[in-house]
Amino acid sequence: MKLVTVGTVAFDNIETPFGKAEKVVGGAATYISLAASFFLKKQGIVSVVGEDFPHSMMATLNSKGVDLTGLEVLQGKESFFWSGKYHYDMNTRDTLETRLNVLLELDPKLNTEYKAAEYLMLGNLDPKVQAKVLDQMEGTALVVLDTMNFWMDSAMEELRSVITRVDILTINDSEARQLSGEHSLVKAAHAILDMGPKYLVVKKGEHGALLFSKERVFFAPALPLDDVIDPTGAGDTFAGGFIGYLARSGDHSFNNMKRAIIAGSALASFCCEKFGVQRLLEITKEDIDHRIRQFVELVDFDIELV
Amino acid sequence: MKLVTVGTVAFDNIETPFGKAEKVVGGAATYISLAASFFLKKQGIVSVVGEDFPHSMMATLNSKGVDLTGLEVLQGKESFFWSGKYHYDMNTRDTLETRLNVLLELDPKLNTEYKAAEYLMLGNLDPKVQAKVLDQMEGTALVVLDTMNFWMDSAMEELRSVITRVDILTINDSEARQLSGEHSLVKAAHAILDMGPKYLVVKKGEHGALLFSKERVFFAPALPLDDVIDPTGAGDTFAGGFIGYLARSGDHSFNNMKRAIIAGSALASFCCEKFGVQRLLEITKEDIDHRIRQFVELVDFDIELV
Repeated sequence: MKLVTVGTVAFDNIETPFGKAEKVVGGAATYISLAASFFLKKQGIVSVVGEDFPHSMMATLNSKGVDLTGLEVLQGKESFFWSGKYHYDMNTRDTLETRLNVLLELDPKLNTEYKAAEYLMLGNLDPKVQAKVLDQMEGTALVVLDTMNFWMDSAMEELRSVITRVDILTINDSEARQLSGEHSLVKAAHAILDMGPKYLVVKKGEHGALLFSKERVFFAPALPLDDVIDPTGAGDTFAGGFIGYLARSGDHSFNNMKRAIIAGSALASFCCEKFGVQRLLEITKEDIDHRIRQFVELVDFDIELV
Repeated sequence: MKLVTVGTVAFDNIETPFGKAEKVVGGAATYISLAASFFLKKQGIVSVVGEDFPHSMMATLNSKGVDLTGLEVLQGKESFFWSGKYHYDMNTRDTLETRLNVLLELDPKLNTEYKAAEYLMLGNLDPKVQAKVLDQMEGTALVVLDTMNFWMDSAMEELRSVITRVDILTINDSEARQLSGEHSLVKAAHAILDMGPKYLVVKKGEHGALLFSKERVFFAPALPLDDVIDPTGAGDTFAGGFIGYLARSGDHSFNNMKRAIIAGSALASFCCEKFGVQRLLEITKEDIDHRIRQFVELVDFDIELV
């Protein structure tokens, strides 16, 4: 098994200026594994759901090569639930309700096959849980960690500790500023790289993404979309496409990281076109290739220095 | 004379989280013509100042090939004055004070040489004044118009009228949404292109710039800077570099517009590094070329579709 992803599998209620979706399947690990499935025939997921979680979605994930032996189902309990509302600009959202439910009992124990995975994606979760998973891994080649301001506010020490142990950190621009205490994104990036990760990916939503190493920087735009219907899960979809592309190629050079960023950006652009994971279930590898070509064209220029 | 620029020449008081600058020379036409001077040996400026405007700055502009026969000096009057304060994120600013002073009397009358200019840059000003200048031009090859939400709020009809007569419009993303009434930037761009301009440039500050034609779109990032000290004039500097590059090359193809966007972005990145026009007075053509190479590297990737 190339990749194991740890993260939430959940129900979401989503309201945007363009409509509403109630009790749709969401969660970081769901988006990540669906995105990665375009690059990997087999991967594992470590999470927990209640008995309310639909068997049809489990079957769908399974049909896409997502192994569910790491997905615990707690009988008599309810799945993690999040409800949020986006404002007109789609860059800000309010959390209306969070019911942790089964998430309080997530205590991952990985089987032998999972422990031996070469790639580990630590989706946004309590850093203590992320660390517990990391402790169990044996000889992982590459670890990507995603997190949020929530953990910087409530568990900075644990977060800082787990960050020292990962290869790549993915956060958004305001989180990069919060984590580093630096306002300049360039200075923030270097402060964070000094904490341990070899690469930092700064996700800027509709404004694209930046990839930093100590020596280099790369920028990928977001594709300008006719309509952004629902940005929920776009960051996780990006991360899933990113690590899926890396895992498939096995190449961890900066140049290949750049390609992985483009692959992740292409997948994230689809994610925003419909509510929840719907669009990710419709698209084909050809759709993704077509969109990657649009990225190539979007930033392509040649300039003579006159 | 290749290029004529109409716009403000002013004094600014600027406060940012990194310091203050008092009564420094600013104004759209100042930034535009300084930026364009890196690409053009001779250009004209149409504006008005009071007798308080420093002769030293006039001499500086003149030494950079900016002809000042179109810059009216009103004796016994004071120059246009703007005072503003930037917040920590540098993307928002409050105008603390605006004293129009001589600007109330700006009533441009172009001489024969100016009327025959091939390129016209209509800097942010009352659209009635922009129209009055356009009326006087004879056989202009390309007109670029920059404007702001202020005119959309106060003179939308006049603005809509002058927009129908220009080749390229440069505005920011929220202004594109306001002008078109469309939230999606892609839909906003197409609605605006339907109003008349052949190209639309959407300036997104630290998030880069988008160039739209009816058929194509191009994205240029902003260069991630170690420190943004003062963003005042960055949009005007961008516009000046853009039209200067176009005027020098004489090539109005989409591919050359892309190069002009990169040239403008490179100049704008310098503008932010010090207060006012200071940095634009220090840099050389070699500095600009070096920065353009950084842009090439920033977005360069090759991807195989796996």
